[in-house]
Amino acid sequence: MTISLSRSMQGYGSDFIRDMFIAARNPDLISFAGGAPAPDVYPLEAFRAASDRAFEEWGRTMMAYDGAEGVLALRELIASQRMASMGVNCTAEDIRVISGSQQGIDFLARTYLDEGDTIIVESPTYLGALNSFNIFRPNYVSVAMDEGGMCMDALEKALIANPQAKLIYTVPEFQNPTGITLAGDRRQRMVDLAEEHDVLIIEDSPYYEVRFEGEKYPPIKAFDTYGRVIYLGSFSKTLCPGVRIGWACADYEILDRFRILKEASDFQASTVTQYQVATYLRDNDLDAHMGNICKVYKGRRDAALSAIQEFFPASVKNTRPDGGFFIWLTVPGLNATTMLPRAMNEIGVAYVPGESFFAGAEHSCNIRLSYSQMNEAKIREGILRLANLIKN
Amino acid sequence: MTISLSRSMQGYGSDFIRDMFIAARNPDLISFAGGAPAPDVYPLEAFRAASDRAFEEWGRTMMAYDGAEGVLALRELIASQRMASMGVNCTAEDIRVISGSQQGIDFLARTYLDEGDTIIVESPTYLGALNSFNIFRPNYVSVAMDEGGMCMDALEKALIANPQAKLIYTVPEFQNPTGITLAGDRRQRMVDLAEEHDVLIIEDSPYYEVRFEGEKYPPIKAFDTYGRVIYLGSFSKTLCPGVRIGWACADYEILDRFRILKEASDFQASTVTQYQVATYLRDNDLDAHMGNICKVYKGRRDAALSAIQEFFPASVKNTRPDGGFFIWLTVPGLNATTMLPRAMNEIGVAYVPGESFFAGAEHSCNIRLSYSQMNEAKIREGILRLANLIKN
Repeated sequence: MTISLSRSMQGYGSDFIRDMFIAARNPDLISFAGGAPAPDVYPLEAFRAASDRAFEEWGRTMMAYDGAEGVLALRELIASQRMASMGVNCTAEDIRVISGSQQGIDFLARTYLDEGDTIIVESPTYLGALNSFNIFRPNYVSVAMDEGGMCMDALEKALIANPQAKLIYTVPEFQNPTGITLAGDRRQRMVDLAEEHDVLIIEDSPYYEVRFEGEKYPPIKAFDTYGRVIYLGSFSKTLCPGVRIGWACADYEILDRFRILKEASDFQASTVTQYQVATYLRDNDLDAHMGNICKVYKGRRDAALSAIQEFFPASVKNTRPDGGFFIWLTVPGLNATTMLPRAMNEIGVAYVPGESFFAGAEHSCNIRLSYSQMNEAKIREGILRLANLIKN
Repeated sequence: MTISLSRSMQGYGSDFIRDMFIAARNPDLISFAGGAPAPDVYPLEAFRAASDRAFEEWGRTMMAYDGAEGVLALRELIASQRMASMGVNCTAEDIRVISGSQQGIDFLARTYLDEGDTIIVESPTYLGALNSFNIFRPNYVSVAMDEGGMCMDALEKALIANPQAKLIYTVPEFQNPTGITLAGDRRQRMVDLAEEHDVLIIEDSPYYEVRFEGEKYPPIKAFDTYGRVIYLGSFSKTLCPGVRIGWACADYEILDRFRILKEASDFQASTVTQYQVATYLRDNDLDAHMGNICKVYKGRRDAALSAIQEFFPASVKNTRPDGGFFIWLTVPGLNATTMLPRAMNEIGVAYVPGESFFAGAEHSCNIRLSYSQMNEAKIREGILRLANLIKN
């Protein structure tokens, strides 16, 4: 067969996400690789009860087509509960349901990116976003981060040097992969820079509600008086990832492109699941649930941090996240990519090597550790083994 | 804001699917516009019971990430039940779960089409497929149909005249919009032509199992010894559309592209819904259910056909489908597009005008009538009103 692939699919073969999923599923491994929430904290009984009530109340409506925008009852609850509690005033009209926030990244890429178009990303940035963007072969401009997230002076320089830039992609809360949060006082500035340089901001914030420590900041979207921010939210880290329900909050002009792409790609998210989630949100206190599961995640983070301090040499640097799932290690002199097969085979430990999170340049002395899915003893054991491997 | 859209999104503004969905929702209309199954035949209680058993049996697994390929239990049932009953021998390895067969169309477009690439379609063809393909600005080559579906001599001529063609898109069973079925003796020939001219066949067959009369043919995929056919199946017309679960059956090389695009666009279909559907399939007899609902659809088709014969002038031609949801009317001299607003406002009847189903050329003396969603009395009344409007 000699049918050529589209240009965007030629040479496209990153298997990294797949490999991670597979690695994370092997029960014999101590896996810091997955970025998923812990199954033991899913609200199984409450969700099951909500599912049953949804069938009782909505019946056949739940099994029918609804529409590309998403089920109204769910969009109303997202606006009045999730967005309102963050300090973003909006209504169901400003919300579109998508099949996970990943679909929002894909839709924005499809809406704005042609080959060679410029997108500004953090350095490092989320692997899954690169995976979606790569299909469109964009020109990446990476902006440095410090402990307060993306550096605004560096962002301004990047915008001046790249006047053709269209998009800024950022994960402001407990960033994947670093765990770093964008400082509160940088948020207004980022919005103002976007307005000044005529770009849009993709605020990808699936971890926003997974905060277990420190001061809560309003999302960048809360500062957006210009209509330049697309907020992408998700239930994957609060309720569970299997529902594949996320949302976009943005201006109508942008959301109308979501409708077009939703109709062309899959019509709509599962009506069944949308009503299940809406009923769960209506009848349960998701904030209280988050309070409970954040205690679990905080315990795991604390176990990871104390093991790092205890077992790693002082030359190894780590971030200290206030929420989310990730710690970022910098190990001077390490090639984290080439060490991975040894870690998996010799000591039974998996992680994601840092180079996967950089657009373009190869940096390989970093390790992303996810502490979300294991108990504290296993986390401690895994970090001990890693430390010994690194020392050798 | 002056951020330019991607080339594929520029000038993209078809609102037809949206308009149809909205029109179909207005309870005051007699709507022949929607292409959806009838809510009154959804197996609500059986699906609800299956959902409850799924939670019981699978628990937290149901709420977790699974993988881009789709839940194994569901893929096994699709292979052993749905595909086997059609005469296609395959295993779970040959199946990928997608979010409705529409997503299969989108993935194949993304995999193979660049601007100007040639795709061969039936004339007329499915509006929703054009909607997905249009984003990639392909070159359409339309092939004539007769009462036996796509004409194989015309297809061969088209393949000879367009040696750069990559894809053939066909809806062989009870085609949307005509209701016509591809004759059994054309299926081997189509596969052989695809092999000879080095193209792939997209066999989009969401209505395959909605046959209520006539001889059942194996899918084109059953003749595919070359690996050139991608069969797209769906539960939307058998179980219900709200689950948004379909599948692709094809060779590994093609399915691996589905994995890449699934990971980049939405990771996977809802795990919750996949286990619900798998449990329903395992514990219920979908064939028996189809036997029951096909009686309902046959009654509605019969009501439509007899009303057409009774009320329309003899100059109006119609197709006579053996399954599915659609009858195609040809009304000499009519402009079906300009008549639509009058039909909706003056006589309270909605339909889809024929021109929406042609790539390129404008044909407007056709009307697509969907009889799936209304009782027989309403169908008869609607056709009476339409006939009177056309006579005036």
